[in-house]
Amino acid sequence: MASWQQYLQDNRARFLNDYLDLLRIPSISALPEHAGDVRRAAEWVARRLEAAGLEDVRVMETGGHPVVYGEWIHAPGKPTVLIYGHFDVQPVDPLDLWSSPPFEPAIRDGRVYARGASDNKGNFVLAIFAVEALLRGEGRLPLNVKFLLEGQEEIGSPQLPAFIAEHKDLLACDLVISTDGANWGEDQPSVSVGTRGLCALQIDVRGADSDLHSGLYGGTIQNPIHGLGRLLDSMRGPDGKILVDGFYDSVTPLSPEEKENLARIPFDEGTYARSLGAPGTFGEPGFTTLERAWARPTLEINGIWGGFQGEGPKTVLPNEAHAKISCRLVPDQDPEEIIERIRGHVERNAPPGVQVTVRAFPGSARPYVVPRDLPALRAAQEVLSEVYGKEPYFVRTGGTVPVLALFLTHLGAHTITVAFGVEDERFHAPDEFFRLKNFDRGQRGYARLLDRLGGE
Amino acid sequence: MASWQQYLQDNRARFLNDYLDLLRIPSISALPEHAGDVRRAAEWVARRLEAAGLEDVRVMETGGHPVVYGEWIHAPGKPTVLIYGHFDVQPVDPLDLWSSPPFEPAIRDGRVYARGASDNKGNFVLAIFAVEALLRGEGRLPLNVKFLLEGQEEIGSPQLPAFIAEHKDLLACDLVISTDGANWGEDQPSVSVGTRGLCALQIDVRGADSDLHSGLYGGTIQNPIHGLGRLLDSMRGPDGKILVDGFYDSVTPLSPEEKENLARIPFDEGTYARSLGAPGTFGEPGFTTLERAWARPTLEINGIWGGFQGEGPKTVLPNEAHAKISCRLVPDQDPEEIIERIRGHVERNAPPGVQVTVRAFPGSARPYVVPRDLPALRAAQEVLSEVYGKEPYFVRTGGTVPVLALFLTHLGAHTITVAFGVEDERFHAPDEFFRLKNFDRGQRGYARLLDRLGGE
Repeated sequence: MASWQQYLQDNRARFLNDYLDLLRIPSISALPEHAGDVRRAAEWVARRLEAAGLEDVRVMETGGHPVVYGEWIHAPGKPTVLIYGHFDVQPVDPLDLWSSPPFEPAIRDGRVYARGASDNKGNFVLAIFAVEALLRGEGRLPLNVKFLLEGQEEIGSPQLPAFIAEHKDLLACDLVISTDGANWGEDQPSVSVGTRGLCALQIDVRGADSDLHSGLYGGTIQNPIHGLGRLLDSMRGPDGKILVDGFYDSVTPLSPEEKENLARIPFDEGTYARSLGAPGTFGEPGFTTLERAWARPTLEINGIWGGFQGEGPKTVLPNEAHAKISCRLVPDQDPEEIIERIRGHVERNAPPGVQVTVRAFPGSARPYVVPRDLPALRAAQEVLSEVYGKEPYFVRTGGTVPVLALFLTHLGAHTITVAFGVEDERFHAPDEFFRLKNFDRGQRGYARLLDRLGGE
Repeated sequence: MASWQQYLQDNRARFLNDYLDLLRIPSISALPEHAGDVRRAAEWVARRLEAAGLEDVRVMETGGHPVVYGEWIHAPGKPTVLIYGHFDVQPVDPLDLWSSPPFEPAIRDGRVYARGASDNKGNFVLAIFAVEALLRGEGRLPLNVKFLLEGQEEIGSPQLPAFIAEHKDLLACDLVISTDGANWGEDQPSVSVGTRGLCALQIDVRGADSDLHSGLYGGTIQNPIHGLGRLLDSMRGPDGKILVDGFYDSVTPLSPEEKENLARIPFDEGTYARSLGAPGTFGEPGFTTLERAWARPTLEINGIWGGFQGEGPKTVLPNEAHAKISCRLVPDQDPEEIIERIRGHVERNAPPGVQVTVRAFPGSARPYVVPRDLPALRAAQEVLSEVYGKEPYFVRTGGTVPVLALFLTHLGAHTITVAFGVEDERFHAPDEFFRLKNFDRGQRGYARLLDRLGGE
């Protein structure tokens, strides 16, 4: 028997090799030709869970890419945590922008370069190593642990909602720890306490039967592009405020405490805009850029098209125009309700002389926010402060992680996201990397977190 | 010697055969592979002018498709008219919608079906036949005649402006008769007294360096599509009135007389909208649909694009949006001035957080209107009344015929458009046709018009 700290130190080289092994599997979930590799990754993960001492380990079918489950539930009276992560990765194109091949992990300057190095392989393996260190080193875990590792996160987890709903008993837990996140900086931890929801739709505007000669007919009937432009412009004021009736009604305002937490995070408007190549920041008045990014809903046109798009002029009066819109939602906005509000707005504001239809896209997601008094949040804060020597920022993410709301709905469990990568590690881009400094820190962090949640 | 009437009657079969011969030449100016056919048509036309008795006939180079010139100028003290038309035609696709091959003219129910049957071969050959009948039948013309027949009208006559400017002396005349028009109905003549001008431009809106994740960045910077939509919406009110500052300043209002003339033309809003498949008519308040189509300027978006256009949703915050705009102009609007007014509007209304540029396209054209007291207009009215047994409508065309303003600028001559096709004869579409009834009527009409203009 050894302390988990000793065990981690003794097995450092082996764990690093295991991590590099996993990175060599090109488990790209978006590309059908890599479906076998996603399954290979699932089997690798299953074997690794078994090696760590987990029980009832299985590769389970979803109808799409598989998930891997494993558990150790021999701590009666102690809480049960479900550790979530994903072993699939994003595609790698453009390949020529990589400094080394994406599935041949290369260590340079204390960093591991490979697709998935940080998102999410580099994070969830650390939790497996931490569990192994506790279990093999000290002979037992301080609480009950289940793993749910999936293979389709990068394509939006299409089969996961049904899978979770159908396996409520197997996955039953008191808390979810998601490893799918990142910290604010190399030495600045952060805890994400919320993600935005999502809904999306398309607006189609139709005029005449076919494109018309703008000389012969221009001025006599409505131009669908003008009609669509009018409609879209009516949805959002020039200042960025969304004008759809009731759009903000269900938004829970930020508490003074959270506003204060966000204001504490160093943020420079100019640096931010320059990093994106934009002339400046812009958005709903009365809120800071971070507040708008994380805690305010959006209505963005994702695409628009109609008429002639080629070189030079073409004097056509087009007969169709289309726009795609998506909204990021914050608690307690409901995606279906927002779609209906937009539909109502379009009906009330439909321009004359054209026909307008609204089609909602499937795949909407509810926003999620961790209750600020959740004891596990306090535990995460303390552990991160300990391993980084610095208080974490409480942040949110503007993106959407549908699984968080699903865990709450189906398992009744809240999720804390604790990860050890950093936001700048080029997720989804060429030369994705992970800092080896956090490879060790992460294993210690997850072990401490489990200890702390088990009541030490 | 014979009267021109007798000559036309005696040569009817030959003239019809000549017309069908010309229709067999696939002189599509838009398609490079038909450049040889356009030239073949030019040579056919040149031979036909010579056969008619015209002198100094030449196929002349423009740098693009050629023009054909011919003259008979032996009537000292009499005015000189320049007869304009074009021997090139539109492409024929979709070919499968033709009832018979487009370049194998077929006579069915008193109609000749072929590409170019009406636009414009079927009209200008009638003027050649009329000139031949006068010249060969009566031995002389009642006035001086020049022909200018071009081969690039259907592609916007790119080299014609320079050609006219360089051949002012050769083309010098007192009046232009354009054969490139059409009548209101089979038995209802009309005279077009105006065409709209044209200017066109593109607006480009740019935000960040690249497309961004709408979750991570949505709400923090301006979305170029929203910015563009705002800008476009600011240019035209929901009622169709153009809001660009000073846009209408140079518009000459319709005289009460012309308003009355237009009101006399039978027009049904419902039938018009249904014929286009549109839910209804629409446009600038305070004007009838015909007034808007012919005598009011327009600002139409011809195309718009930005962001994602594929199937389903994509939650992207796009970094570019683009729109093409064209304006139809009426006297005395100046295309360059309108471009500058739009540019000024864009500058004053540029949305924050994005960069906006305006690029004017070449190929603008001035509007043209025939002075209502032009004696030749009265002559055309009388001749049409005579050959149709019905007073013509005074109409305008909403389209643009740049050459009309060029004749005025470079030759100092006004143009009357007198043609014998009908507006419903499917120009530019499958199954274009020409009514044989007007084949005879047109020859008589052009002969009478020349007589009348020569002072009989």
